[in-house]
Amino acid sequence: MIDHALRSRLDDTAQAIERLLDSLLCPAPLAGEIARPARLLEAMRYAMLGGGKRLRPHLTVEAARLFGRDGEGPLRAGLALECVHGYSLVHDDLPAMDDDDLRRGKPTVHKAFDEATAILAGDALVTFAFDILADAPTDSDPAIRAALVIALARASGFGGMAGGQMLDLEAEGRFAPDGKPLAGTEAETLQLQAMKTGALLKASVEMGAILGRAGPDDFAALATYGRILGQAFQIADDLLDHEGDAATVGKATGKDAARGKSTLVSLLGPEEAKRRLGALVDEASAALSRFGERADTLRATARFVAQRQN
Amino acid sequence: MIDHALRSRLDDTAQAIERLLDSLLCPAPLAGEIARPARLLEAMRYAMLGGGKRLRPHLTVEAARLFGRDGEGPLRAGLALECVHGYSLVHDDLPAMDDDDLRRGKPTVHKAFDEATAILAGDALVTFAFDILADAPTDSDPAIRAALVIALARASGFGGMAGGQMLDLEAEGRFAPDGKPLAGTEAETLQLQAMKTGALLKASVEMGAILGRAGPDDFAALATYGRILGQAFQIADDLLDHEGDAATVGKATGKDAARGKSTLVSLLGPEEAKRRLGALVDEASAALSRFGERADTLRATARFVAQRQN
Repeated sequence: MIDHALRSRLDDTAQAIERLLDSLLCPAPLAGEIARPARLLEAMRYAMLGGGKRLRPHLTVEAARLFGRDGEGPLRAGLALECVHGYSLVHDDLPAMDDDDLRRGKPTVHKAFDEATAILAGDALVTFAFDILADAPTDSDPAIRAALVIALARASGFGGMAGGQMLDLEAEGRFAPDGKPLAGTEAETLQLQAMKTGALLKASVEMGAILGRAGPDDFAALATYGRILGQAFQIADDLLDHEGDAATVGKATGKDAARGKSTLVSLLGPEEAKRRLGALVDEASAALSRFGERADTLRATARFVAQRQN
Repeated sequence: MIDHALRSRLDDTAQAIERLLDSLLCPAPLAGEIARPARLLEAMRYAMLGGGKRLRPHLTVEAARLFGRDGEGPLRAGLALECVHGYSLVHDDLPAMDDDDLRRGKPTVHKAFDEATAILAGDALVTFAFDILADAPTDSDPAIRAALVIALARASGFGGMAGGQMLDLEAEGRFAPDGKPLAGTEAETLQLQAMKTGALLKASVEMGAILGRAGPDDFAALATYGRILGQAFQIADDLLDHEGDAATVGKATGKDAARGKSTLVSLLGPEEAKRRLGALVDEASAALSRFGERADTLRATARFVAQRQN
């Protein structure tokens, strides 16, 4: 059950992101580029257009709106986050990584094209994300643009998302001599998840705060909200993998158990995981108390993330 | 025969880059990072440390020196370029791409580690490159840092290096019905090479000019030098592949012909290619005339690039 006001905000941002993607991923090269090869552009568009809730751009847009900052800047920052999210899916789906054939119900990029094109499309998307952030239309102040580049790089690089994927792959290979998966501890699992998925969600909120010139206390409150939201997102994701139906979820389910992957669901059981999820939604909401009703869309977003079915 | 003054400058920069890499690719996370997983860090260090001429950082450092700009800033910008160069080698060596087992005489990253780790190490290196550029120690002026991010992104993304690798893979697959390779035209070959290797070399020079606050005419002269140097580099590379000895070159030779790849050597013959190479060195030198003797190191660099044996 999604709040109507939130639905409208999510739809508006998703449509604006789709339009911006369509216009930026075009054949015409920018100054400093030579040419954009058709096949690579096609693969990047295939990976990025027509899919997803655009949750990360939504978080950036809504966080910036708390400070009266709207328009193209937050959308461009959100788009950069979405390009990094999209590249990570393209690379994670590769045979050498998670080896997935379907994503959102359609063939993954390396299936629709080929492995080399998928690797290059991911490489080009992460590179383009930083171009978008550093360019003038994102913000008139270059110090803000540089801060956005750093925030995105640290959330998604070896100390964040890419590092989390490394830990995830290592965890899947940690099998005991009796052939049973060696479960990670709760602390290890939380750190892995904070890196693999949490860091980019937290950065989505923080980058909105950066664009809004948030003071230190406002920034800290939003960072707390983003961190908690990331945890809630991951528990919801693990519950969907545990209990969801592949057709509704849009990708294979039951994979975590098959791979012996530790999640809060496997460590605590589904009931305790659901209880924690509820508590995290309350905590996320409370973290925003200093913003009063202005933050109701972000509160509704936390409930939505916890209850989503795909 | 390498100019003694140039040798000393190249060595100084290579040593400084090695020290900076060693200190930045360390286990301690930066603000905004969570943790740096040991295996991923090890793979990144394996890919980056102890190898290469560090030609791109050298170009940045020497271009910046024309304007009296030296110290940590140009080295950091050069290191970012080297991270992008390094990531491109790690990804290009993958089985789905060029499928190479050796690089500079040692096992490639996916051989020394595994494919998933090689993909992630490349991803983390390109991300780290933008972090380095955007951070304050690179330049006190955030507008300069943002300009460096854009220059590197456009030289290395879908409109530059990654796009060139896409074209290169496509060209290798373009076989005629009679089973013979379908050679690209000279114009197609030049564009492919300008993207795949030329763009990053040109950006190396331009980023030095950006750090040096070059005026438009100085910038244009250095951009011309960088473009011509890139062409010379590629012809020298193609000649080494055609005529070189694998042990001296440090990687397999004769690959271009085996793959039916068009180069200026295959299109024009080695003698004409050598003549062009000599002419390019003269042109590169002439492009720097406005800088007088101050640009002698860059002139010597053009000669070195043309005559190198590995």
